[in-house]
Amino acid sequence: MRIPTFDDVLEAHERIRPYIHKTPVLTSSYLNALTGAELFFKCENFQKAGAFKVRGASNAVFGLRDDQLARGVATHSSGNHALSLSYAAGRRGIPCTVVMPRTAPQAKKDAVRGYGGVIVECEPSTSSREAVFAEVQARTGADFVHPYNDPRVIAGQGTCSRELMEQVEGLDAIVAPIGGGGMISGTCLTLSTIAPQVKIYAAEPLNADDAARSFKAGHIIADDAPDTVADGLKVPLKDLTWHFVKNHVTDVFTATEDEIVEAMKLTWKRMKIVIEASCSVPLAVILKNPQAFKGKRVGVILTGGNVDLDKLPWMKG
Amino acid sequence: MRIPTFDDVLEAHERIRPYIHKTPVLTSSYLNALTGAELFFKCENFQKAGAFKVRGASNAVFGLRDDQLARGVATHSSGNHALSLSYAAGRRGIPCTVVMPRTAPQAKKDAVRGYGGVIVECEPSTSSREAVFAEVQARTGADFVHPYNDPRVIAGQGTCSRELMEQVEGLDAIVAPIGGGGMISGTCLTLSTIAPQVKIYAAEPLNADDAARSFKAGHIIADDAPDTVADGLKVPLKDLTWHFVKNHVTDVFTATEDEIVEAMKLTWKRMKIVIEASCSVPLAVILKNPQAFKGKRVGVILTGGNVDLDKLPWMKG
Repeated sequence: MRIPTFDDVLEAHERIRPYIHKTPVLTSSYLNALTGAELFFKCENFQKAGAFKVRGASNAVFGLRDDQLARGVATHSSGNHALSLSYAAGRRGIPCTVVMPRTAPQAKKDAVRGYGGVIVECEPSTSSREAVFAEVQARTGADFVHPYNDPRVIAGQGTCSRELMEQVEGLDAIVAPIGGGGMISGTCLTLSTIAPQVKIYAAEPLNADDAARSFKAGHIIADDAPDTVADGLKVPLKDLTWHFVKNHVTDVFTATEDEIVEAMKLTWKRMKIVIEASCSVPLAVILKNPQAFKGKRVGVILTGGNVDLDKLPWMKG
Repeated sequence: MRIPTFDDVLEAHERIRPYIHKTPVLTSSYLNALTGAELFFKCENFQKAGAFKVRGASNAVFGLRDDQLARGVATHSSGNHALSLSYAAGRRGIPCTVVMPRTAPQAKKDAVRGYGGVIVECEPSTSSREAVFAEVQARTGADFVHPYNDPRVIAGQGTCSRELMEQVEGLDAIVAPIGGGGMISGTCLTLSTIAPQVKIYAAEPLNADDAARSFKAGHIIADDAPDTVADGLKVPLKDLTWHFVKNHVTDVFTATEDEIVEAMKLTWKRMKIVIEASCSVPLAVILKNPQAFKGKRVGVILTGGNVDLDKLPWMKG
């Protein structure tokens, strides 16, 4: 396990700058009044490929040695990492293979192909995914870019909070969603170096609360196939991300499914932006735990905006 | 008929600056590739009260003489002007009465009341609205702030393209939706003074194409109760707005209902922002008339983001 350093974040930032947006920070006087905090929303939903994941993916892809290029990159993901790795590989002109369950939404498959990625389908089970991915890697020799448990990916995600700290002065805390922990780890990596006084809160669906339980227990507890509307947050912590959570996170707060959907709809309605359920969890936990945030200047990472507009979670049936 | 001048725009800008946002300009490499143009989206959906209308309404409200304040302002509107006037009056601490059809969406009524406006309901007919409004005005002595056919309102709307011209260099054209013509008139007012070389296109629903037909005929033709998903654009031109359309608009393009909804959904999906159907018409007409925009730098006014999230136009039934 190689733990990335802040120098890796700086290097990543230089490397990926031409391929990512410096995303804007938005505020809402309505949400400030509602929460009693000053909230600064870092809009990674406006990021290339629609999510922060392109930071880590681009860092991995553009950090490859010349002799690795022909074999390209590969990953398994049915979400934003698949899109982001395909985007980054497309920009570098190298092959990208993504193992996706055949049941993944057609829109996600189309988006991966739109960026030039090649999809190899597996059955929707861990055993099938691992078998198919092993075959792909053996056949292509591609570099495996894990969605989060990869030092290159974590260093890339660390560029997000570096930007945020440049954009907003005097933050007291940052809240980010936690699934596998890539964004939170990058945030820890950056803040523990440049702003160790800033508190870091992880926001997690109660239905997939492996990080909250791990945090309390002091060791990794993996969930078994959790189900939540925040579909980017179903995956468990791994050794590398656990290292950062354990050492640098102030607390892990959870929110129910209803609270997440309500925060999502509230953000759309008042801020006029499209965000995923996954990045509505931070606002949900801020509303739920006012004592931790009241009177504070709080950065909120809006991690992505890739939503199926035909199936919004507040539209039942 | 008092025709506002660019000095009125400058005065309006100073007057309203504390109460409005200088809204950001967003771009989309996807939509640029799709249209062959360079598009610059002026995000008035992020404006206070969710729409550009707050510019004109604030200019009227903050331009009142002291002796007018106690009697307040009044208008008839079931849309963004109602919200905006209520917001502005609330900021100045004066009464605001809005005549709205009793059939107006509950969400709009709640929003007006949320800003401190008082609603007087009328039947959903022109005769009822006029009768009720006359009664309100007689009773309150309030200053009538027309949604668009008012020089103070037009001068206020003119601040939007003034900002856009500061934010983006070398624009070849600006496209804005047209209903009653307040935004287009403000755009004409500003550009005819500071950038007369910039073409001004008005974008209109085919189902409510009174401006397109008036433009061709050379005189005002009012539609009779048009029906369109772009519900902010149902109202007809009036003498003041017709003056600007006639003298300064390059062309009026129309789009069908399907084209408008498709452009709206495309904007949500690719730009991750919530916009109304009314301000999807410009992108719809740009996609429909590529010859006019190809290779050009084009400003697009996104006029508002007040959408009923429970009733999205691409969700049938």
